[in-house]
Amino acid sequence: MNGAHALLSTLVANGVDTCFANPGTSEMHFVAALDGVPQMRGVLALFEGVATGAADGYARMAGKPAAVLLHLGPGLGNGLANLHNARRAHTPMVVVVGDHATYHKAYDAPLESDIDAVAGTVSGWVRRTMRTADLAADACDAITASRAGLVSTLILPADVSWNDGGRTAPAATLPTVPTVTDDALRAAADTLRSGAPTVILVGGDATRKPGLAAASRVAEATGARLLCETFPARLERGAGVPAIERLAYFAEAAQEQLEGVAHLILAGATSPVSFFAYPGKPSDLVPDGCDVHVLAEYAGAAAALEQLADELAPGATAVSAAAVRPDRPTGDLNAFAAAAVIGALLPEAAIIVDESNTGGVGLATSTAGAPAHDVLTLTGGAIGYGIPAAVGAAIAAPDRPVLSLQADGSAMYTIAGLWTQARENLDVTTVIFNNGAYDILRIELQRVGAVSAQPPGPRALELLDLGGPAIDFVKIAQGMGVPARRATTADELAAALIEALTEPGPHLIDAVVGSLAG
Amino acid sequence: MNGAHALLSTLVANGVDTCFANPGTSEMHFVAALDGVPQMRGVLALFEGVATGAADGYARMAGKPAAVLLHLGPGLGNGLANLHNARRAHTPMVVVVGDHATYHKAYDAPLESDIDAVAGTVSGWVRRTMRTADLAADACDAITASRAGLVSTLILPADVSWNDGGRTAPAATLPTVPTVTDDALRAAADTLRSGAPTVILVGGDATRKPGLAAASRVAEATGARLLCETFPARLERGAGVPAIERLAYFAEAAQEQLEGVAHLILAGATSPVSFFAYPGKPSDLVPDGCDVHVLAEYAGAAAALEQLADELAPGATAVSAAAVRPDRPTGDLNAFAAAAVIGALLPEAAIIVDESNTGGVGLATSTAGAPAHDVLTLTGGAIGYGIPAAVGAAIAAPDRPVLSLQADGSAMYTIAGLWTQARENLDVTTVIFNNGAYDILRIELQRVGAVSAQPPGPRALELLDLGGPAIDFVKIAQGMGVPARRATTADELAAALIEALTEPGPHLIDAVVGSLAG
Repeated sequence: MNGAHALLSTLVANGVDTCFANPGTSEMHFVAALDGVPQMRGVLALFEGVATGAADGYARMAGKPAAVLLHLGPGLGNGLANLHNARRAHTPMVVVVGDHATYHKAYDAPLESDIDAVAGTVSGWVRRTMRTADLAADACDAITASRAGLVSTLILPADVSWNDGGRTAPAATLPTVPTVTDDALRAAADTLRSGAPTVILVGGDATRKPGLAAASRVAEATGARLLCETFPARLERGAGVPAIERLAYFAEAAQEQLEGVAHLILAGATSPVSFFAYPGKPSDLVPDGCDVHVLAEYAGAAAALEQLADELAPGATAVSAAAVRPDRPTGDLNAFAAAAVIGALLPEAAIIVDESNTGGVGLATSTAGAPAHDVLTLTGGAIGYGIPAAVGAAIAAPDRPVLSLQADGSAMYTIAGLWTQARENLDVTTVIFNNGAYDILRIELQRVGAVSAQPPGPRALELLDLGGPAIDFVKIAQGMGVPARRATTADELAAALIEALTEPGPHLIDAVVGSLAG
Repeated sequence: MNGAHALLSTLVANGVDTCFANPGTSEMHFVAALDGVPQMRGVLALFEGVATGAADGYARMAGKPAAVLLHLGPGLGNGLANLHNARRAHTPMVVVVGDHATYHKAYDAPLESDIDAVAGTVSGWVRRTMRTADLAADACDAITASRAGLVSTLILPADVSWNDGGRTAPAATLPTVPTVTDDALRAAADTLRSGAPTVILVGGDATRKPGLAAASRVAEATGARLLCETFPARLERGAGVPAIERLAYFAEAAQEQLEGVAHLILAGATSPVSFFAYPGKPSDLVPDGCDVHVLAEYAGAAAALEQLADELAPGATAVSAAAVRPDRPTGDLNAFAAAAVIGALLPEAAIIVDESNTGGVGLATSTAGAPAHDVLTLTGGAIGYGIPAAVGAAIAAPDRPVLSLQADGSAMYTIAGLWTQARENLDVTTVIFNNGAYDILRIELQRVGAVSAQPPGPRALELLDLGGPAIDFVKIAQGMGVPARRATTADELAAALIEALTEPGPHLIDAVVGSLAG
């Protein structure tokens, strides 16, 4: 058996049975081996950022890694932004980067580059397999490492892939979830018993129902406030799920949320910092004099909260969000009306992939009491995540409707993902919040102007404007095989959404909402 | 003056007056400063790979660097593939990567990543400016380094950009072009006088008319054969320009071209190696027993050939290609008919950006006697280069028509570049060679099957098929504001091409050609 066959066999033997691929010549033996390992589903992406983002969305929903197949250093580069997001989401992933044959690297052929250096910036585990006989064991190590919440990158020289001598796969070991220490538990319990103003910042694996329910019980019993990290990898919410407010994106708003807090208990979240630096404003958002206590890191946070709840709140009951939807609006469409339409119509068991950015300002409120759903967010701030992640989420959960909420600007980074949605006939409804601008940057430019007392000039504003020419997402989607409609009123959006959610397969709605930057 | 203003002033004072930008929050002060430095033209790209590819195409035609503005590590990642191509093309470029404020990096905010490590893989010069007062001098160093044919990457922390204390720009020094050594000249001359079968492999700065004319004179006087490196950054050719055959892409074909050669003289080119490795085939394409002589590296190759011609061929005249065009074909459209249409209709002074890959198989022949033109090729093998490079070439040479010849597969990597073509109203005609497949990979998969005696299986072939759903480039282009038509016959292609070349502004033609893989 050649190396490619051994690698594929090892992956599927360990449950990694989906590979998002954008292959090239150096990966042809891997591609050829797909016919010998039919348990592996190969999903073609037309751009590497689609493959990596899809693997991220897949793993967040499947709870296990997908494989990704990339072509040398430039392919890895094209996939890097969504690997960055995956790293921040603690997403398990096994990235296979095909490289030149071992003996060919010395010739500095045109595609030669330093793959290892680039991979190291996003991967918690990197290895270059040099012998075909080692490939199965290396793949097992990659899977084991990924299962701890890492991007694992296996660099696969072409000759290691095509040579014979591949071995049978051993089984990958699964890492154990870290448990909370007695000290950390006692410190948190003592703090909460003190009655001082305390916020529990929930993140990591505690942003799903069990962790949120435990946090809610603690809050009920102690009066502590709960906040969720700003960008959870997967947040469960809606009717029947304990509600939790997210820490705000803008530093000023987050500071308001944390004002007067004496203790901050981190349960899976990291200590809050400003997303960007701003002149004269703090990077650290912890209020002066506030003590920070680490209850749990990313993994094990839900279990730690459950232990804490059992100690502090044995009789308390979690408070879940009521089932309540906004009225379906009519008339003009803007970001808030669009959010209300979505809140009114969100189907059961939906997966929301949220890259709506400024356009999504009304969504948290409008969907708070909608049927229980999962929200996947932009954990690393590298835009171009949503359309690919929707691909992966839909493949991981084929019986759940995926609602991909997209800003117009960020949609254009990985727009080719729509084609994979069509090719795989995925049940994804994309709503473009089309405001014709990099609206977040207009807001940021206004903030710059507010500090310097110089309003933004026309040449600067021009560089943030997506209106000339207006991007027609309907035509772009249709060009990639996705049925699409434009909505310019709330009624049109509702009609389009009902149609899209009723018909199987992918759809796109180009929702023309206004700018928030004024 | 703040750092951003000092940086922009320094760039324009040194002739770097075009900036291809995809900014984010950390670059807002750079953007805001555009109104204070109106000599700088900011060109918005909707994806970073468009910005870097445009800067590459710009510099190849303008002969000077453009600036690029990218947003942190993920932005650099998205631009990396075309920076790889630029590195291989020896393209001068000044890449400014905005980063978090110096003091903010310690907080590991979501977008934090190792920019320096990624930049190092494609840049010949990398510096992180830590003080506003140093910014102008660092920018000068970046420009000087880039002028030697390097990607220079200046990492710009947000506070270094926004702080006051920026200084007036010194002038960047220009590097000198290396001159040929007496030893190298004598060795080449002796070899050529020996009468042994000799090939001069022309590349680097010798692929334009002066270098080609000198090479042609040497060939006339000595009987040496000329070949051009496989992927020249900018090849001048057509009627009135000395013709030169390019070294073939596939190793077997290149080996045939080099068979029986006793001496290989490198004039700006590197020693020929196989683009990829294949089982049992050599990486090094130099025939056994052939001596390799380095006359000149990339820069200075044209001057070295002129010195060689003056010594060996003082009376010889360069042989230029005759003005001859193919008949305009009618009837069915395939890759060869499309090439003939293009050869028959190529306008005067055209710039061809060639990423047609397999679809372009007939182009070299069909355009050999067309009006003199420049061809920009995919130097680094990282696909997704053509549409962006056409943006840059059109901005660098606004009075010349740009013909962007694109394979369907590679077009999808940086398709958002069409929007910038529309926004800037660039005179670019894109012809998609639409064969509905990664046809080059189908061919490679057949080669794998030929070695293993196992024909490609259906699951492998499926992964290389772009036909389900078919990509409608007409709709995609229209969605980004570029007028577009489909051509399914040679006559339709000719009519569409005439229309596109007559009307100002960008156009796209979706030319439905067949697969070569059979």
